[in-house]
Amino acid sequence: MNANESAAGIASMCADMGRRAKSASRVLATTSTALKNRWLNRAADALTASTDAILAANAVDLSHASELNLSEAQVDRLRLTPARIHAAADGQRQIAALPDPVGRVLEGSTRPNGLEIRKIGVPLGVLFFLYESRPNVTVDAAGLAVKSGNAIILRGGKEAAHSNAALHQVLERALDAVGLPADAVQLVKTPDRAAVGALLKLSEYIDLVIPRGGESLIHRVAQEAAMPVLKHYRGVCHVFIDESADLEMAERIVVNAKCQRPGVCNAMECLLVHRDVAGVFLPQIGQSLQKRGVEIRGCAETCRLLPQAIPAKPEDYETEFLALILSAKVVDGLEAAVEHINRHGSQHTDAIVTRDLTAAQRFTAAVDSAAVVVNASTRFHDGHEFGMGAEIGISTDKLHARGPCGLQELTSYKYVVTGSGQVRE
Amino acid sequence: MNANESAAGIASMCADMGRRAKSASRVLATTSTALKNRWLNRAADALTASTDAILAANAVDLSHASELNLSEAQVDRLRLTPARIHAAADGQRQIAALPDPVGRVLEGSTRPNGLEIRKIGVPLGVLFFLYESRPNVTVDAAGLAVKSGNAIILRGGKEAAHSNAALHQVLERALDAVGLPADAVQLVKTPDRAAVGALLKLSEYIDLVIPRGGESLIHRVAQEAAMPVLKHYRGVCHVFIDESADLEMAERIVVNAKCQRPGVCNAMECLLVHRDVAGVFLPQIGQSLQKRGVEIRGCAETCRLLPQAIPAKPEDYETEFLALILSAKVVDGLEAAVEHINRHGSQHTDAIVTRDLTAAQRFTAAVDSAAVVVNASTRFHDGHEFGMGAEIGISTDKLHARGPCGLQELTSYKYVVTGSGQVRE
Repeated sequence: MNANESAAGIASMCADMGRRAKSASRVLATTSTALKNRWLNRAADALTASTDAILAANAVDLSHASELNLSEAQVDRLRLTPARIHAAADGQRQIAALPDPVGRVLEGSTRPNGLEIRKIGVPLGVLFFLYESRPNVTVDAAGLAVKSGNAIILRGGKEAAHSNAALHQVLERALDAVGLPADAVQLVKTPDRAAVGALLKLSEYIDLVIPRGGESLIHRVAQEAAMPVLKHYRGVCHVFIDESADLEMAERIVVNAKCQRPGVCNAMECLLVHRDVAGVFLPQIGQSLQKRGVEIRGCAETCRLLPQAIPAKPEDYETEFLALILSAKVVDGLEAAVEHINRHGSQHTDAIVTRDLTAAQRFTAAVDSAAVVVNASTRFHDGHEFGMGAEIGISTDKLHARGPCGLQELTSYKYVVTGSGQVRE
Repeated sequence: MNANESAAGIASMCADMGRRAKSASRVLATTSTALKNRWLNRAADALTASTDAILAANAVDLSHASELNLSEAQVDRLRLTPARIHAAADGQRQIAALPDPVGRVLEGSTRPNGLEIRKIGVPLGVLFFLYESRPNVTVDAAGLAVKSGNAIILRGGKEAAHSNAALHQVLERALDAVGLPADAVQLVKTPDRAAVGALLKLSEYIDLVIPRGGESLIHRVAQEAAMPVLKHYRGVCHVFIDESADLEMAERIVVNAKCQRPGVCNAMECLLVHRDVAGVFLPQIGQSLQKRGVEIRGCAETCRLLPQAIPAKPEDYETEFLALILSAKVVDGLEAAVEHINRHGSQHTDAIVTRDLTAAQRFTAAVDSAAVVVNASTRFHDGHEFGMGAEIGISTDKLHARGPCGLQELTSYKYVVTGSGQVRE
């Protein structure tokens, strides 16, 4: 088989997956909540019952980890354990317990001419989800998709290929067992990257692409996709210490936002300090952060107040470090902080520490980010902490969905108009 | 100036417009409802007061209409009259009377740890709106954008260039007069199409593109845009006559949906008739439609029952005629109708006429369209008829907004999280 035949083969295989997903999505769109929940609970039981087979597949992936030059952190994310499989199964049961977003009446009215207008939640159709590493994301994503009435095409990382295939098989069999189309949850099994390109062209079958991974993956998808993309992009998150801040609270929040889990998108990357409190606060927080091994890259004023700080380069203020590194800057006031955040941030999560109500109001109104936080850690910005249940990602887009994307965010709506023979004059 | 210099000049002019729009959008995002309404009412007064100047500019456009080979219908759409200017002014006053979508609390909760979560309506930022012909759309779009806290860049058709410039000048002066940035409403004045291409690249400044016009315009925008696009696409709208339909009601609805205003997107293009009533209904409706000069392109069964019908080609079932032409097909039942609509329709507006509750429920659940109508004309699918006030278009997309796009649909949301020092464990 030459390269062209192979490309044609992949394109036709992908088109077939798309067609089958669209057809499954038509069934799912009108599947009862009870049946979707039956699948979720059955999948949960089957995952636990299949622990040995899943761990065996995972062992194959782990045995290839060194060939793929995976870091220790990546190997840890790839590794499944009975406890992690149990947690994935539990996630499905939690999704079953959440309200069904399909069929919700979002708004409604009766018009003067007697027409009844109802705006009703409906599935999007077919999702294409690209993700890296953690194999239990396979289970979460499938659960969220089916509960929200959508078919899903999954494309995991090649390092997790065997684990994902084993998990997918369990999910697929459970679909079959409860009488739902197995095509509702499909896994792209070829490692060929051409499959991604082929799927990204299928706007007639795929309604939304969700890439979750590194910047280069997201860039590629955003550029190539012929259908809408929901981006889970970077988090360059700020904490601004206002002149009226309770500095003890400010310290607790900064340490938590930076150090509690530095490798995630809602961790803090940049500290902004009001000039009037910088002389007191920076030396105080500098000590706390130094104890925890945080490197500080600061403006001239920061470096003057904190001997340990090294001078920041301009790009440090736009970098998602995902590590124990913090950029820091002394600003003239609230407006300068807002301006810095709106210019250099990533519209993800930004916080103010203040005792001044007017400052809190101005900050939350003027900062244009998915989550704006007053007197709490940026780390709270996620679906679980917001009480929304499981999430497929945190959107940094403003269109369609912003912030945590759970079941509701995987739906659209339609207008159902019921009359008794009305015609328009 | 050579072509490259000119292209560079246009790109730099567009980038400057984008930058200024973004800067104006930051101001608008936190502008009070009262001030936005003051502008709307002032603009309304100024439009009426400027009637003579606007009509003079419109006369220049009308004098070029024959050079541009405009059809009679296009000339009629281009023509402004004192009454049409008055109506445009009145539209601004109506928008002023609508609730402000910015700052609405969409959802909210207090978490077990005391964090207060509020999901709040916010503007999208900067809109780029491309439209054809009717100059009063300039006024409507600007009004909707500013009321929803967005800056807007307008690009009308070249046939309306003088009219749009005159209207824009009135709107711009009113912005200045009330103390809002004049850059909130900008008009692309160069007729060079390269300006559209340059603006479609500016994803850092423009948050959403809304093309409203012919298919080729929408295609070009969807292909070239580096930012999200909200498409007001074609309406291939169906009416299905179920076996249990009140045939007198069915006739009234079909005549209204096809003939009341055939040139609009929510007019009916295809009639589907249940086999069991085709023998009675088709001859009956055939007469009514013939009287009104409607050409019918039908399936073999339709042609057998209706001597006036001509055989339909496959593409007739996917065509938005926007004229007194109707495709027609006899189907075996409800499921065949649903299947036909989901396969050949455009997900715009589809109706069923029935007396059977189960049929109505199945049709509204299974047809995947922005509006699904029971026992009423498809013509009701618009923002005014739904009680939403003015609209910038009817979205045929499923992401972000579906159906009529008014003030709410021009907004996103943010999460405002207020704590008292909470950190994450």
